[in-house]
Amino acid sequence: MSALPGSPELPTAAFTARIQAFRERIEGVLDRALELPDAGTSRLREAMRYSVLGAGKRLRPTLVYLTGESLGAALTVLDVPAAAVELIHVYSLVHDDLPAMDDDDLRRGRPTCHRAFDEGTAILVGDALQALGFAVLSSEPMAGTAAAARLEMLRVLAGAIGTRGMAGGQAVDLAAVGNRLSVSAVEDMHRRKTGALIECSVLLGALAAGVSGAAELGALRRFGAEIGLAFQIQDDILDVEGDPALLGKSIGADAAHAKPTYPSTAGLAASRLRAAELRDAAIASLAPFGERGAALAQLAGLMVSRVS
Amino acid sequence: MSALPGSPELPTAAFTARIQAFRERIEGVLDRALELPDAGTSRLREAMRYSVLGAGKRLRPTLVYLTGESLGAALTVLDVPAAAVELIHVYSLVHDDLPAMDDDDLRRGRPTCHRAFDEGTAILVGDALQALGFAVLSSEPMAGTAAAARLEMLRVLAGAIGTRGMAGGQAVDLAAVGNRLSVSAVEDMHRRKTGALIECSVLLGALAAGVSGAAELGALRRFGAEIGLAFQIQDDILDVEGDPALLGKSIGADAAHAKPTYPSTAGLAASRLRAAELRDAAIASLAPFGERGAALAQLAGLMVSRVS
Repeated sequence: MSALPGSPELPTAAFTARIQAFRERIEGVLDRALELPDAGTSRLREAMRYSVLGAGKRLRPTLVYLTGESLGAALTVLDVPAAAVELIHVYSLVHDDLPAMDDDDLRRGRPTCHRAFDEGTAILVGDALQALGFAVLSSEPMAGTAAAARLEMLRVLAGAIGTRGMAGGQAVDLAAVGNRLSVSAVEDMHRRKTGALIECSVLLGALAAGVSGAAELGALRRFGAEIGLAFQIQDDILDVEGDPALLGKSIGADAAHAKPTYPSTAGLAASRLRAAELRDAAIASLAPFGERGAALAQLAGLMVSRVS
Repeated sequence: MSALPGSPELPTAAFTARIQAFRERIEGVLDRALELPDAGTSRLREAMRYSVLGAGKRLRPTLVYLTGESLGAALTVLDVPAAAVELIHVYSLVHDDLPAMDDDDLRRGRPTCHRAFDEGTAILVGDALQALGFAVLSSEPMAGTAAAARLEMLRVLAGAIGTRGMAGGQAVDLAAVGNRLSVSAVEDMHRRKTGALIECSVLLGALAAGVSGAAELGALRRFGAEIGLAFQIQDDILDVEGDPALLGKSIGADAAHAKPTYPSTAGLAASRLRAAELRDAAIASLAPFGERGAALAQLAGLMVSRVS
């Protein structure tokens, strides 16, 4: 994830270094979570590692780390929810790429899991990554975190990825191919399919930091929901007008799949306005946190001004 | 699940009525868990309900109820882990039936999910049912259950269905098609693919009843592991010599799929001996529970003498 040099929301060098450090950190955490000497078969183990490691923006772990650290959590504690959300995110990518879903051959510049291995293995990779996400979040050490807080994290995660959230959004997406949707239906689809796990990532960071007040959690929930939708609208925009060299993938995939997107429904200009409006609403919801919200506001800017 | 009239392990009428009551109870609990007004699409909702409701032995919920009730838990508390394990079990069946896995057209006498709906929907049904299992276990009310006990239940469930357990077992199964395995490799596959979730069901019932001692949990873990393997060996045996009319499905599917099974590896006579030996070992591990283990011992007998 990077912004064009000279763009108005260009992040500070210190901020860029901080999120780069989170990215390097989560690679190590994921690598350890995927050691799996008991993965059933070496093929399943390799396919899980292939799918998770070595690529990806790691936006969701970054949100966990940045939210949690801003609110006072230790990075060693944040490693656990950060890994959980990324494992769940990758499971969803592996299954979305399957022939019966989006039928994609490339992901992050490499063959998709079912192309590099086989379809049965890719189904199992997704299934096992979902279970591993819950195993990590329920079992890995989180020093000083009460059982009740951890249970709440599991509740938030399970709620975010089920029918009300990610899986439901994918069902809407699958049904929408070739159809025209209203702008609000596209927003609902994006809020579920992408937004729910982004919102969850913010909440998990806050819960790991011991935030428990309804007002504070509500404000962070709004931040996550608004910036999650903005992020997906920007994703749709980049699929129309992005630079393939910067994105590391070809553009036009949504149109090729006949997928309703924000730009295809509302137009490009309205999409840019909506993303900026959502970013501003997200940043406004950080007001109760004062200076503690500054880093998240900076990330929100980057999530919308990004060119990759 | 029923035994032939006159069989030596014929369950008592009171026992049969008790497990029938559990079966009726779980139908209602699952029906409520699947109301899902917010399932994304009505197709996903209907496919989830179609896959879960109205059929199945409900062995895993029965193990949760019988273990928990024997050890003093209320049925209203046990409803929660009972529903969770069945939702997870059905997710595994829906994915196992997919064309890229076992490619089965019929399940419990009806078209499999991907045949009744479509493949993309069936993938999503499994994904959403896995998430729903964790959502139910983390979120549904369980009066009087401490957060720490509930967290432990989530740990046990996540561990049982990942690469060390169910998903790993399915990977072994997928890789084994057409190959000869040793008897111990078949046992390992069965212990993971089927045994781990059965063992988990016993443990969840015990945890819901407030059992926390390592010795008691260890004994129940052994009971679940041994009877879980015995159950799968009996399943393999019935696929060779069962009565299709009693089973409600045709036999010979394992051989048709070129799947290594206990009988194909060790022979039928050795399979029957091994199942009985495992049943006896399972029952012996209940000794510390005295009379409180009697119902589980009776169920163990039925799991091996069953003809359907």
